Amino acid sequence: MNITRFTDYALRVLIYAALHQGKLVTIKDIANRYDISKNHLMKVVQELSAKGYLDAIRGKNGGIRLSRPANSINLGEIVRLNEQHSTLVECFGEDNHCVITPACQLKGILAQAMECFFAHLDGFTLADLINEQEQPALMQLLHIQQS
Amino acid sequence: MNITRFTDYALRVLIYAALHQGKLVTIKDIANRYDISKNHLMKVVQELSAKGYLDAIRGKNGGIRLSRPANSINLGEIVRLNEQHSTLVECFGEDNHCVITPACQLKGILAQAMECFFAHLDGFTLADLINEQEQPALMQLLHIQQS
Repeated sequence: MNITRFTDYALRVLIYAALHQGKLVTIKDIANRYDISKNHLMKVVQELSAKGYLDAIRGKNGGIRLSRPANSINLGEIVRLNEQHSTLVECFGEDNHCVITPACQLKGILAQAMECFFAHLDGFTLADLINEQEQPALMQLLHIQQS
Repeated sequence: MNITRFTDYALRVLIYAALHQGKLVTIKDIANRYDISKNHLMKVVQELSAKGYLDAIRGKNGGIRLSRPANSINLGEIVRLNEQHSTLVECFGEDNHCVITPACQLKGILAQAMECFFAHLDGFTLADLINEQEQPALMQLLHIQQS
C-alpha cells in the first residue's frame, strides 16, 4: 500500500512554505533542502497553485508562498487531490479485467476503507504539522533562519 | 494510492475457494477463471497456506481449499498480511532520505490513517463477500457448477 510521490512532495512543499510564514520561497530551495527532483516539484507546485493553495509570484525576485493560513489547509483535502481517484485495485481502474466485478462486494468495502483513510486525515491541518513544539526542529532540519 | 497485486490476488483466491465449499480447486483453474498469471498465484497460495488460510493437498488429485470457515477469515487480517509493513510514503521505508523525519508529525498521522483503512476491513469476513444474495452471480461469472 502506498501513496504517490506527488502527494508526498505536495505535503513537503506545503510544510516548507508554511514554515516561511508568508516569505517567498523558490522551487530550487525546496528541491535542495529535501534533496529531491526539481522537475517533479514543478508539477506539484503548479497543481497546488492551480488549486489555490499556493501563490506563485513570477519574476526575478519571485517565488511561492501559502495563499491561505496553514490552519485552513486540510490534510485530507491535499491527499485527496491526487489519491481519491487512484486505482486502489484493478477494478477501480479503466483497464479492469476482473470477471467477478459485477457481483463483487469487495470494491465497495475497499472504497469505504479508503474513505476512512481520508477521513482520518480530514481531522488535521497543515498547522498541526508545524506546531510550536515541532517548528524549531523542522526549521533547523531545513536550514530555515528564524525571522 | 494502491494496494499490491499480491493482496488483490489473495482475496480472489479466497473468494474462489470459498465458493467451492470444501471441494479442492487448482491454481490452474483459478488462473484460468480470472485470466491472471499462474506464477503470481503460486506465491499467493503458498503464503495463504503458510499462514493457515488454505489447505494444500499434494498429488495427482490434489488442490487447495479453505482451511477454516469463510466467516472466520477476516478481511482486515488478509489485507494486513502484505500491506501492513508497506512503504506508504518514503519515511515508512528503510531507504528514507527525507530530512525532516525526526520532527515530522505526518508519519504518525499517515500511520493512523492506514490503521483506519485496515480497521474498516476488520468489520468484514470472507463470508460477507459470498453471501446468499451475491453467491449465484459469482458462481456464474466464475463458471462454477452448483453442487
